[in-house]
Amino acid sequence: MNLNEIGAKAKKASYLMAGLGISSKNEGLMAVCDALTDEKNIDRMLLANDTDIKNAVAANMKESLVDRLRLTKDRIHGMAEGIRQIISLDDPVGEVINMKPRPNGLLIGKKRVPLGVIGIIYESRPNVTADAFGLCFKTGNSVILRGGSDAINSNKAIVSIIRETLSSKGLPEDSILLIEDTSRETVTRFMKLDEYVDVLIPRGGAGLIKSVVNNATIPVIETGTGNCHIYVDESADIDMAVRIIENAKTQRLGVCNACESLVIHSSILEQVLPLIEENLKSHGVELRMDERALFVCPDNASATEEDYSTEYLDAIISVKTVDSIDEAVEHINRNNTGHSESIITNDYNNSRYFLDKIDAAAVYVNASTRFTDGFEFGFGAEIGISTSKLHARGPMGLEALTTIKYVIYGDGQIRE
Amino acid sequence: MNLNEIGAKAKKASYLMAGLGISSKNEGLMAVCDALTDEKNIDRMLLANDTDIKNAVAANMKESLVDRLRLTKDRIHGMAEGIRQIISLDDPVGEVINMKPRPNGLLIGKKRVPLGVIGIIYESRPNVTADAFGLCFKTGNSVILRGGSDAINSNKAIVSIIRETLSSKGLPEDSILLIEDTSRETVTRFMKLDEYVDVLIPRGGAGLIKSVVNNATIPVIETGTGNCHIYVDESADIDMAVRIIENAKTQRLGVCNACESLVIHSSILEQVLPLIEENLKSHGVELRMDERALFVCPDNASATEEDYSTEYLDAIISVKTVDSIDEAVEHINRNNTGHSESIITNDYNNSRYFLDKIDAAAVYVNASTRFTDGFEFGFGAEIGISTSKLHARGPMGLEALTTIKYVIYGDGQIRE
Repeated sequence: MNLNEIGAKAKKASYLMAGLGISSKNEGLMAVCDALTDEKNIDRMLLANDTDIKNAVAANMKESLVDRLRLTKDRIHGMAEGIRQIISLDDPVGEVINMKPRPNGLLIGKKRVPLGVIGIIYESRPNVTADAFGLCFKTGNSVILRGGSDAINSNKAIVSIIRETLSSKGLPEDSILLIEDTSRETVTRFMKLDEYVDVLIPRGGAGLIKSVVNNATIPVIETGTGNCHIYVDESADIDMAVRIIENAKTQRLGVCNACESLVIHSSILEQVLPLIEENLKSHGVELRMDERALFVCPDNASATEEDYSTEYLDAIISVKTVDSIDEAVEHINRNNTGHSESIITNDYNNSRYFLDKIDAAAVYVNASTRFTDGFEFGFGAEIGISTSKLHARGPMGLEALTTIKYVIYGDGQIRE
Repeated sequence: MNLNEIGAKAKKASYLMAGLGISSKNEGLMAVCDALTDEKNIDRMLLANDTDIKNAVAANMKESLVDRLRLTKDRIHGMAEGIRQIISLDDPVGEVINMKPRPNGLLIGKKRVPLGVIGIIYESRPNVTADAFGLCFKTGNSVILRGGSDAINSNKAIVSIIRETLSSKGLPEDSILLIEDTSRETVTRFMKLDEYVDVLIPRGGAGLIKSVVNNATIPVIETGTGNCHIYVDESADIDMAVRIIENAKTQRLGVCNACESLVIHSSILEQVLPLIEENLKSHGVELRMDERALFVCPDNASATEEDYSTEYLDAIISVKTVDSIDEAVEHINRNNTGHSESIITNDYNNSRYFLDKIDAAAVYVNASTRFTDGFEFGFGAEIGISTSKLHARGPMGLEALTTIKYVIYGDGQIRE
């Protein structure tokens, strides 16, 4: 199948999907759960995954990446469990809000409807395939998946199982389509398939997202790059600062809501930095500091301007000293990616100032940046964490996969 | 000033704008109203406009376009009146919704905030300059304007007056900036200024919008292309159909919500088409028909496939015969631009089917498509009518110029 055929099939299926009620969609998802945990299907997926793993090992892929690629029986049950959680969420589609009569008698309301066709471009983890399908199907959308070439055999197996299941239930199998040609040319052409695809959601590193933004003619929602800061204000509770920084940096290293950079008020630097240093070093974290911080804790690397704009996704953190909250806010707004930022403070006015002035999806007072997450926010599963300002910002739950249309009931009204 | 300087100034001003309260913003807008209607300033604008008009006439511009370019004392007062109406609208910025505690004690809310820097690319009408400024300023955004080269002198005069007024009131004058270099290269580079500009809203014809979508790396909201249909169902009230079609086609020709194409059920064709033809021809409208329609009303041009996908913005309409509502819906979804579509019917099930299945910003039963408009919908002034599905769909009021951020109040929470 070429890209235009894939686009046309997905579009056609999207009209069928938009007409499905919540019971049909949940029954379809339940059938997919059952199919994914069927022993014969598990064997199919493990066999396909084994090919991907062998190819990866032969290509000398880093062990941490090979691990992300690996499917196990447990991980497959985890995929099914993810879909089961999606089944339990409320379906936002179909609700009509703000329906009001106009003086001329027209009755105008806003109806929540699926977006149509959603394109997902992602990297190695094959569980994204089932996750993305579950969220898109629940909201009545078709999804076109373009996973990484490393995971192509695993993805083919997962998508085949889902398509067979849908087809056996009389549901539109073309609501999930996989682009099997993982060449760079094809993905670039996919980004321009605006005739058929309504939105493109890249999930992966900064390089992938930049490439999608630069090439796509389809509207893009950027997700998941997080150069997140914690600002330790002069009035901070020092124990709390150390504890929150430890959590935000070390609880999980390779995630977008991990803290990558500290900003510390100069008047508290001598008290707090040695404690932070000791704590982070006990977790094997390297600190890169500006000159004033190095004066207090000399046994560290020095930070360059590039450090301040880098999302490490690793056991490294940068440290910047400032003389005022204004300078902290200015530094953060200049270097951040609009993801999550936190202030540690006991000063009422500074907490308000930080919440107001920081330009990011999630702004915290006295809490770890690690909470920016669909489950932690109480929305359930998410398709990603948007760092875009349009359409959706922060953790994207089901509603982010919908749009509205105006429905207007008349009885012959014409415009004067 | 080069583009990067313009972008950086606009961004800097956007942080100041985001901190302005509603009274300061309304006072600024009121001062701009007064300045625009000051006699000396009116003379400045008329003089600048006169240069544009002379250049246009010398370049043999069509009289209808010269008219769109022309400023008069009345039109300038109309611009000020438009800003006065914006002052009277509620400011959506600053509201915090859905603020709820999580089990761990974090208090999470969604705060409505300005988008930041809005880019508007538009064609000849200089009144858009004041309109766009008013809407962006009211919502705490900076705006970078790139108007047509035809209107450059008029736009310079309007922008200078606004900037002088803001500056005299101590408000950020860089909240409005005009790109004075109207070359094609510069506008293309402007579309890639994603470091500074948060959203691009093109206002103009299909060619302009296509060019922006193809070139921009900044997120785009498409506006104002409308290949709008009216479907006359077999159960339609014939008088109502004729009256609504007359209104939707002829009440104003060159607007995006005008009807460009009729879809008529075959079983009612002989009864309704001659009446529609007589009515539209009395308004000088040319009809282009498929074969079955020509069989009923032979004295008309024949329609090509291209006609069905054309937004005429002129006294022309296409006619397509169908044998079922399914065929009508399929034809419309294939050819429309996602703007406004209407069904004329007395059949309950067909009205629901049409409302459900048509993929457009506004779907009507028994009413003219001409109502798709911010004022008619009761939102007040609009920045455009979005045919995008992301972020905003249909008439874009003040809220479409805002986004949200999550604000999170903690007392030391860390993620387990």
